[in-house]
Amino acid sequence: MAEAFPKIKTIRYEGADSRNPLSFKHYNPDELVEGKSMRDHLRFASCFWHTMRGRGGEIFGMPTAVRPWDDFQESVETSIRRIDVFFELLEKLQIDYYCFHDRDVAPEGRTLNESNKILDRITKVLAKAQKNSGKKLLWGTACLFQHPRFMHGAATSPNLDAFVYAAAQVKKALEVTHELGGEGYVFWGGREGYFTLLNTDMKRELDHLGAFMHMAVDYKKKIGFKGPFYIEPKPKEPTKHQYDSDAATCLNFLRQYDLLDHFKLNIETNHAQIAQHTMQHDLETAIASNALGSIDANMGDWQLGWDTDQFPTDLYITAHVMLCVLKMGGFKTGGLNFDAKVRRESFEPDDLFHAHIAGMDTFARGLKIAARIRQDGRIADFLRQRYASWESDLGKKIEQGKSSFEELEPIALKMGEVKTNRSGRQEYLESLFNEFI
Amino acid sequence: MAEAFPKIKTIRYEGADSRNPLSFKHYNPDELVEGKSMRDHLRFASCFWHTMRGRGGEIFGMPTAVRPWDDFQESVETSIRRIDVFFELLEKLQIDYYCFHDRDVAPEGRTLNESNKILDRITKVLAKAQKNSGKKLLWGTACLFQHPRFMHGAATSPNLDAFVYAAAQVKKALEVTHELGGEGYVFWGGREGYFTLLNTDMKRELDHLGAFMHMAVDYKKKIGFKGPFYIEPKPKEPTKHQYDSDAATCLNFLRQYDLLDHFKLNIETNHAQIAQHTMQHDLETAIASNALGSIDANMGDWQLGWDTDQFPTDLYITAHVMLCVLKMGGFKTGGLNFDAKVRRESFEPDDLFHAHIAGMDTFARGLKIAARIRQDGRIADFLRQRYASWESDLGKKIEQGKSSFEELEPIALKMGEVKTNRSGRQEYLESLFNEFI
Amino acid sequence: MAEAFPKIKTIRYEGADSRNPLSFKHYNPDELVEGKSMRDHLRFASCFWHTMRGRGGEIFGMPTAVRPWDDFQESVETSIRRIDVFFELLEKLQIDYYCFHDRDVAPEGRTLNESNKILDRITKVLAKAQKNSGKKLLWGTACLFQHPRFMHGAATSPNLDAFVYAAAQVKKALEVTHELGGEGYVFWGGREGYFTLLNTDMKRELDHLGAFMHMAVDYKKKIGFKGPFYIEPKPKEPTKHQYDSDAATCLNFLRQYDLLDHFKLNIETNHAQIAQHTMQHDLETAIASNALGSIDANMGDWQLGWDTDQFPTDLYITAHVMLCVLKMGGFKTGGLNFDAKVRRESFEPDDLFHAHIAGMDTFARGLKIAARIRQDGRIADFLRQRYASWESDLGKKIEQGKSSFEELEPIALKMGEVKTNRSGRQEYLESLFNEFI
Amino acid sequence: MAEAFPKIKTIRYEGADSRNPLSFKHYNPDELVEGKSMRDHLRFASCFWHTMRGRGGEIFGMPTAVRPWDDFQESVETSIRRIDVFFELLEKLQIDYYCFHDRDVAPEGRTLNESNKILDRITKVLAKAQKNSGKKLLWGTACLFQHPRFMHGAATSPNLDAFVYAAAQVKKALEVTHELGGEGYVFWGGREGYFTLLNTDMKRELDHLGAFMHMAVDYKKKIGFKGPFYIEPKPKEPTKHQYDSDAATCLNFLRQYDLLDHFKLNIETNHAQIAQHTMQHDLETAIASNALGSIDANMGDWQLGWDTDQFPTDLYITAHVMLCVLKMGGFKTGGLNFDAKVRRESFEPDDLFHAHIAGMDTFARGLKIAARIRQDGRIADFLRQRYASWESDLGKKIEQGKSSFEELEPIALKMGEVKTNRSGRQEYLESLFNEFI
Repeated sequence: MAEAFPKIKTIRYEGADSRNPLSFKHYNPDELVEGKSMRDHLRFASCFWHTMRGRGGEIFGMPTAVRPWDDFQESVETSIRRIDVFFELLEKLQIDYYCFHDRDVAPEGRTLNESNKILDRITKVLAKAQKNSGKKLLWGTACLFQHPRFMHGAATSPNLDAFVYAAAQVKKALEVTHELGGEGYVFWGGREGYFTLLNTDMKRELDHLGAFMHMAVDYKKKIGFKGPFYIEPKPKEPTKHQYDSDAATCLNFLRQYDLLDHFKLNIETNHAQIAQHTMQHDLETAIASNALGSIDANMGDWQLGWDTDQFPTDLYITAHVMLCVLKMGGFKTGGLNFDAKVRRESFEPDDLFHAHIAGMDTFARGLKIAARIRQDGRIADFLRQRYASWESDLGKKIEQGKSSFEELEPIALKMGEVKTNRSGRQEYLESLFNEFI
Repeated sequence: MAEAFPKIKTIRYEGADSRNPLSFKHYNPDELVEGKSMRDHLRFASCFWHTMRGRGGEIFGMPTAVRPWDDFQESVETSIRRIDVFFELLEKLQIDYYCFHDRDVAPEGRTLNESNKILDRITKVLAKAQKNSGKKLLWGTACLFQHPRFMHGAATSPNLDAFVYAAAQVKKALEVTHELGGEGYVFWGGREGYFTLLNTDMKRELDHLGAFMHMAVDYKKKIGFKGPFYIEPKPKEPTKHQYDSDAATCLNFLRQYDLLDHFKLNIETNHAQIAQHTMQHDLETAIASNALGSIDANMGDWQLGWDTDQFPTDLYITAHVMLCVLKMGGFKTGGLNFDAKVRRESFEPDDLFHAHIAGMDTFARGLKIAARIRQDGRIADFLRQRYASWESDLGKKIEQGKSSFEELEPIALKMGEVKTNRSGRQEYLESLFNEFI
Repeated sequence: MAEAFPKIKTIRYEGADSRNPLSFKHYNPDELVEGKSMRDHLRFASCFWHTMRGRGGEIFGMPTAVRPWDDFQESVETSIRRIDVFFELLEKLQIDYYCFHDRDVAPEGRTLNESNKILDRITKVLAKAQKNSGKKLLWGTACLFQHPRFMHGAATSPNLDAFVYAAAQVKKALEVTHELGGEGYVFWGGREGYFTLLNTDMKRELDHLGAFMHMAVDYKKKIGFKGPFYIEPKPKEPTKHQYDSDAATCLNFLRQYDLLDHFKLNIETNHAQIAQHTMQHDLETAIASNALGSIDANMGDWQLGWDTDQFPTDLYITAHVMLCVLKMGGFKTGGLNFDAKVRRESFEPDDLFHAHIAGMDTFARGLKIAARIRQDGRIADFLRQRYASWESDLGKKIEQGKSSFEELEPIALKMGEVKTNRSGRQEYLESLFNEFI
Repeated sequence: MAEAFPKIKTIRYEGADSRNPLSFKHYNPDELVEGKSMRDHLRFASCFWHTMRGRGGEIFGMPTAVRPWDDFQESVETSIRRIDVFFELLEKLQIDYYCFHDRDVAPEGRTLNESNKILDRITKVLAKAQKNSGKKLLWGTACLFQHPRFMHGAATSPNLDAFVYAAAQVKKALEVTHELGGEGYVFWGGREGYFTLLNTDMKRELDHLGAFMHMAVDYKKKIGFKGPFYIEPKPKEPTKHQYDSDAATCLNFLRQYDLLDHFKLNIETNHAQIAQHTMQHDLETAIASNALGSIDANMGDWQLGWDTDQFPTDLYITAHVMLCVLKMGGFKTGGLNFDAKVRRESFEPDDLFHAHIAGMDTFARGLKIAARIRQDGRIADFLRQRYASWESDLGKKIEQGKSSFEELEPIALKMGEVKTNRSGRQEYLESLFNEFI
């Protein structure tokens, strides 16, 4: 089949001085950082929905995207053509992984049965494309938010029929993900939330969500799917209050419903920002519960209140993300999925390349910055010294849960006043951080 | 002793048509609502810190408050005088409860030992005032955020000395609260958070906080304090990221560190708003874990990003809060504590009365609105019908955790499409809600 | 032609005790308030775009709206059918005015010429419907934001062709508005802004906008259109930075480009909120420059960062809006246009009625609250006394611009200190305001 | 007199590889960039208020700052000692300028007369310190927001006495600024705004502000002060609504009251951010009216809703600021004033050095990044090509205000559709920008 991007060759690393816009300045897949290739550190994925189905439409504007290979129909033929183009793009960008929703890759039929059959056909096409290219599925998921049937929620719908339909849809999506060797499976509850408590029984809806997730775990075991489940937090949009608001809220839900053994989190930069957290905060929150699974690598605009899903081009963000990833010992089944879309005004096919290159180079630099910071050691030393008092016998005893207020009170009374605080040196540390950029 | 407010008599209920600013238009303490007096429903408390120690100072402005009884010194004599005035105010406002921090009611000494002795003296004064007036302590707490010693945190300080000091201070505050018959004890972690992760080991700090709370629980048992512990969520301010961000985050912490049996939440309207939640959202979140303990009854400005701690004068807020309180069957040990301060420009002594009256009347009206909504039943009916499908056998089975994806799939396939959604009727419900205002 | 809502009769005023959801509880069109009918005070308009073209689609969800009369095609026949239904709805809701964009009422053709011809046909249909019903056009406008041709802006596009096309489109929309007896014409610059300054020459774009507006003024004079031009402020969405951010920014633009004589503002509640202003702030800002023209009567969610365009059901908002409107002596050519859409979950045809009734009743109550506050006079008295010192000779002299620092300094030196401040009494005033609700 | 920082020598440029925290890695005062020294480009100033009077107190916490030279009293002696220390710091940091409020440098007396006399004494000390050191005053200002007398505003107070007092205070501050050779004078209206419109006549207050500013202009002329007046925009905090919200709002005020000839703007990064603008947006807004005067060089936290006044350590911010400054041809009377404070936790004296070094190095790098971008030319080229269509005859004609809708319509009709849009290439440009960091 004819190439969709005949004028674009495989994007290669040409170094920081290259003036070729269609080259990597920093991403050098096989270059070793801390003894591991950049490719293996970063595990980049492109997402089918934004990359192949995004058209630049928004609430105030019609689609703008020029996609010569696409007739924008919901046909099997077009779906297959899109997969061809997608894999061409993955190859030319040297991206090893991809992610999809069931309804991105395959059109819906008139009934669920028909939809399933179409999805089966498409799954075969994907399997073949994977085999031919060596590309892999980072994770799959089911779209439970676009169709009107889920307007009031899927697993949290007040309407039992919607719940049942969602269960069947997730069952199928799990099977397909398993069949394609997906390394994980994501739940993003875009409609699992509410607009007004006047018409919502929040507790009952959460109970239903818990029941749904247990059924999913049971079925995963049954079919032998070994990959982790991920929940993807987001605080709002499309609903006013999403039940999976942020990392801590998701962890609370997983603990409350005894699901923590089976789930990790897929943290997205833009979602964390909307939740008023820095990305590193939500990453650290997940890591503190051994629950960081994968990352949706995009960024938002700090001053806009909605999900802009921009390609990550901020070096501070990527450096901090990679510090977290290196700290936890790297990804296992997860990776950096560009859940990012080209701007509506970046409507030309080439922008898909410019945008991915921008994100990949910014993350490659983030990785190298993080590695230099770790190699240098000054920030880690500062941190170690800051907590040094906890290395004392008393500190250890408290950390082991063996002390008591009665033991500590006389020590405090003898102390009389705390005289041992040292500066937090925030300005110095921020300036030191800049030295590595 | 001379009255501080000689011109102000006890504030009485005069009904909605009264034009006397120093009367209640709606709060009629012994009027029954749903068979219980308003007094018992609302359990109003005034807080010592804002009411007696608030002076209208802020980051850009010096104090403004005119308080003729106060020399603004940190002396025992002044502290005792303030308690007199406070109880005069409680009596004249017909407020039954109060709350305090250790350092509000009693000045610090040069050492912890000295501070404890001063606090002992003041405790006797408070005990006597309680006895004379019949007023009760809703909850006590320790101030672990104002003093420089806690600049880097108290239970989460990187400095072990600060942790030890905090432990001793909480021990004492617990003893004092117990001695005064306090119905609960609050933890607000104003410095338990961070400004930058560059100098912070978040996981270690959370572990320390967990250890601290376990010591508090142990000590509570030891001294026989039966009241609940409350954590008060707040997402930011003074730190960038508070560890107790919102109700769900606190619940996650309590579950992670196996503390949920010993704690409930003290939810504050303004804090919930800063966390991007409505007050009713955070209340429902707490109720869903049977963890709503008490309420800090204030309100914030929706458009300001900091804690304005305004007296609650919004009928929508108070009606929604009281719907939640009635729904959970009323307060047990908790109540409505006005954690609210008069505006810096409301600097005259009388404003303390105007402000409390405003808050009490708005809550009294909120209670009556909530009761009318419940009496009317139309909103509850709507909700019942909305979830009616879950009352089927299949719905029950799912709710009992006895179904599976395999059971549901054939039902969905037979259904083909969800055809049973009904309008959420948000606009109608909002208009209906207005009928009760 | 068959009615679209055969089961719904004209909505009538039935008073506050009616339990009929399809009645007005407060809006009584011919009831006099301050000597003028509610109808004439409120001058309600429904907007064609949300009411007839809104389908409940959003960025994460497909359309949900059930509209049995609509095949959702861009045909002239369907357009005409929609107009029938719209006027049926206006009549049954007793709404006297409407507003539209050129592209809402009429489909685009393949060329501008074709589009104009279609619009001419539709204009005739509208004219006839107006004549038959007595309904009037509050204002017309051109849609310069949806089509990809305007992706980079219309009057501020870097592409001259887009500017030229926009000029021709506005010319036609002005003619049509004039022909239909429109009482005003609105400019909302949804694409007049930018996403990144990296690709934007802001000053040059503003100059182009100024030139465009001058051409519009010239043409308005030429065709004898006597109604005012309105600019509608909005700070962001769809772009990151809209040039017409808020009332003050628009006024600055109008002054800078010498256009203030020809324009007033059309202030929208939700837009003001997104700009971090209360609605009354932006209304007062406009009134202070004698530039309040009309109002887009909706509301946003205080905690969501995008334009939710909800029907106004908050009594505080409507009461404050009506206080401003009464203060300026009522609308002249403007009115209350419900630029509001039913929630995506309120997808049934009846919700169009419930939503408008909710908005109309809430505004009717807002009007009556505002009138009671004015009748009562206590708030106005407070304000008068607060500024009383300015009624002195010196105050007058300063206000007339006849004083100087040299005159004032000796007065201040003699004064030594300001001793005359009085409490701002915010809490009392908020409570007093509640008395009228 | 003994040095306050005996262990700290003059901070010198040591280059990017230096590991000495007390050195400049990038700020090399006499290094030429675009043919001008960095010193002359950046014109750094330190502010007396944060640097010498900031103590780390905030609403939830007492002061923390350790300042061995300061007894924290409001005495003349201490004030003089502070000036010594301040100039030592300026010298050791190689900062050429400073800024102050009247009440920072000199304590208030019991009367205005006494305050003026104290200020006269201190002015002499400052004059001598300037002479000895060669340091210069970038701008002076009067503190009209801290004292209770200004609780309801200064020039916008409802109380005439406060207005009169403010007039006298500004008169004196102007004289002192003039005497010290100040290069400008700033108005920041911290209390010129309101908390609730229930007690505020906004229009009247703005009229008073206009009258006040005209008196200031008259007096400036009278005493022969040639420097510009600057207004410093801020949208909120301490009040809910500041009248000088952002650049556009200030310009509107200046135009409305015919003051634009006499004022420029002093734009602060943190204030722009709170107003939901990027710093470069507000800078461009000012530049577009030829009204950018000076810059308060700090930064805020994107996720906190209050003024954190952090030292600028974000390279994206400083690079964008310096692009604007270079674009307008550099500062004339203005400069980069660090209106920034060390974090409350950075409480040691050395942190004053670390923080200024951080800010100066980040701005030095920002300057060099900006110069490299200009030298490279690719971004400028992109911009030029993007607007190329406006260089046509028609484009020029429109820009000259000589075209009309009638002229443009036939062109549009002939065009039929806009076919000439090109991608905005945002992702590419952001990535290209990163190449220069």
